[in-house]
Amino acid sequence: MPLEFELTKSDSGSGARLGRLHTARGEVETPTFMPVGTQAAVKGVSPEQVEATGARILLANAYHLHLKPGADIIAAAGGLHAFMGWPHAIITDSGGYQVFSLPKHEVSEEGVRFRWESQGEAVTLTPESALAIQQKLGADVMMAFDECVPFPCPYPQARTAMERTLRWAARCKDAWTSPNQALFGIVQGSTFEDLRRASAEGTAALDLPGIAVGGLSVGEGLETMQEVLGYTMPHLPMDRARYLMGVGLPEDILAAVEAGVDMMDCIIPTKYARNGTLFTQVGRIRVTNREYRRDKFPPDTNCRCYTCTHYSRAYLHHLFDADEIFGQTLATIHNLAFYGTLMADIRQAIQQDRFSVFKRDFLDKYSREGKKRKVVG
Amino acid sequence: MPLEFELTKSDSGSGARLGRLHTARGEVETPTFMPVGTQAAVKGVSPEQVEATGARILLANAYHLHLKPGADIIAAAGGLHAFMGWPHAIITDSGGYQVFSLPKHEVSEEGVRFRWESQGEAVTLTPESALAIQQKLGADVMMAFDECVPFPCPYPQARTAMERTLRWAARCKDAWTSPNQALFGIVQGSTFEDLRRASAEGTAALDLPGIAVGGLSVGEGLETMQEVLGYTMPHLPMDRARYLMGVGLPEDILAAVEAGVDMMDCIIPTKYARNGTLFTQVGRIRVTNREYRRDKFPPDTNCRCYTCTHYSRAYLHHLFDADEIFGQTLATIHNLAFYGTLMADIRQAIQQDRFSVFKRDFLDKYSREGKKRKVVG
Repeated sequence: MPLEFELTKSDSGSGARLGRLHTARGEVETPTFMPVGTQAAVKGVSPEQVEATGARILLANAYHLHLKPGADIIAAAGGLHAFMGWPHAIITDSGGYQVFSLPKHEVSEEGVRFRWESQGEAVTLTPESALAIQQKLGADVMMAFDECVPFPCPYPQARTAMERTLRWAARCKDAWTSPNQALFGIVQGSTFEDLRRASAEGTAALDLPGIAVGGLSVGEGLETMQEVLGYTMPHLPMDRARYLMGVGLPEDILAAVEAGVDMMDCIIPTKYARNGTLFTQVGRIRVTNREYRRDKFPPDTNCRCYTCTHYSRAYLHHLFDADEIFGQTLATIHNLAFYGTLMADIRQAIQQDRFSVFKRDFLDKYSREGKKRKVVG
Repeated sequence: MPLEFELTKSDSGSGARLGRLHTARGEVETPTFMPVGTQAAVKGVSPEQVEATGARILLANAYHLHLKPGADIIAAAGGLHAFMGWPHAIITDSGGYQVFSLPKHEVSEEGVRFRWESQGEAVTLTPESALAIQQKLGADVMMAFDECVPFPCPYPQARTAMERTLRWAARCKDAWTSPNQALFGIVQGSTFEDLRRASAEGTAALDLPGIAVGGLSVGEGLETMQEVLGYTMPHLPMDRARYLMGVGLPEDILAAVEAGVDMMDCIIPTKYARNGTLFTQVGRIRVTNREYRRDKFPPDTNCRCYTCTHYSRAYLHHLFDADEIFGQTLATIHNLAFYGTLMADIRQAIQQDRFSVFKRDFLDKYSREGKKRKVVG
């Protein structure tokens, strides 16, 4: 097995679980958050800066990388790790989500026909070609090519897509020839309990080292997400890694961990950072607001990241005001460190069998102080 | 004295000289190149990344910083060093050059009346207020407020401006009260030998720890710059630091050192980097060119900077092509390292009393290979 998931502890008061991904490029403690490096770079920061925030696995995107610079160029460079200078684990998304987001795409049993965004060339992406691209990229984990449906989605469409996703996952498994890369299947089924259950069971039957839950974080909201996880997770095997795709805000992450999720990825910490929104223990702040002009405190007074140990909110405010890209770098470092610390705290809480207390205390501080600030101005 | 210049060696075959600036924030070996951090940040890179390229003194700009975030905010933050996290020496330009570049400005003996670029408020910048701003910023070296003339400039205008610059320098000296900051005067006089001589002698008479040569690198070209330096430098005291403002390309730097210059600053390495132009031992390359798409070599095969020891031209090409700002960071690190290495090599050559040979060999390789490449395509 190119990747093994080891379950080390289960929280007694919730579905939260502690584990370890054993990969060819080292171990990853779970639950883990994976920063997004769509185009073979986490926007605005170096691999060393990402590593210092605690991250040990990144998500890159096969669709974007095949479009630019091309999977062959990355393969010739020795693969994604060498190309982008990241020595730890990498997971690549198959491109399914991107292709199904394109305005014009035609789905058939064979695959999806679409035009590349910039060049306009018509191509068909199939389970086999999506796997071939990911094998060239050389990530530690590859994702099966799945059919993504919009939210909300009519039952018949959700069912058809879920069933096709299962058939495509089997084709991906057949096309998978690289012994050093793992393949994860993806559970679909929109917000329908019977479809999610069938998808979970069908995906589990493929006996892959990890299973992802897809089709969430598409606008359904935290409550619906929790509901879907509630009737999906029990049908996933306990001894395989569980990856919730595209999640999320700190409150979403806590809910996902509570439901038994081991891995998550999201653009939120990096994207918010580039717009000047910083996460702190007492809620989010917009450092671009004029109130931070003279603020001598670090972004988060409890944070030990590079940004918080070197710079004030006033300096970050100035950098954003002056359009200095170093502001985006500093904000990204801080937000990734906030997520890294959150995950480390979550793991410690599970280790101590007090996840629910930790979650309640974290959210209490995170949202109460946030509300107080809003009232004060 | 808040700053002392120590002349340690003179090259026997040229005007080149080796020295050391003793500042409150450590020693700076000269000749030195000062990266530009106009708005309290070297664009796209952290202080540690700048430091790793060998730089030990930066230039920031009093005009820009007073406009944004304001000198009072920086003073309240503990000064420029603390605000921007740079522990080594800093020099601030007075703002003269910026103010005289504004389309509408009115010069009088008192100072310059103009409107702040963004806010439109009419203000008068005087030698005294320029000094007051710089004292609040707290850099190790402050520049006198000078009258800058365009190039080419009629003799009467150049003479009037040069004479006023001398009177303003004396007023700056009178206004200078901070014991931990040094003040440098600025030689003006456009391209007129008698004016440059009078300015050099008049500035030298102020007995300041350093003297800058201003009004060059304004479009006059390398030959004219060399000519002006040729008749200006002999009138500057040997035991004071000599700073050539706004210079330049590697060939300009070599010419300046040859004429006896100790300090230089320029936006070229950082600005070119952000456009994808990289300096190498064999000339400049545009890494955005398609020929670098599959190029596995580092930007400069002889360079030991972070960028060259971790990344290929193909990766940099991809980052620029994909609008990833990390490309700008990597290119900036490399170009600053190229300049840092050039300065270290220059200092070693002067130490070994072979500056002229070094200069000839460097330029031979730098331009010959560059030409060869152009022919090949």
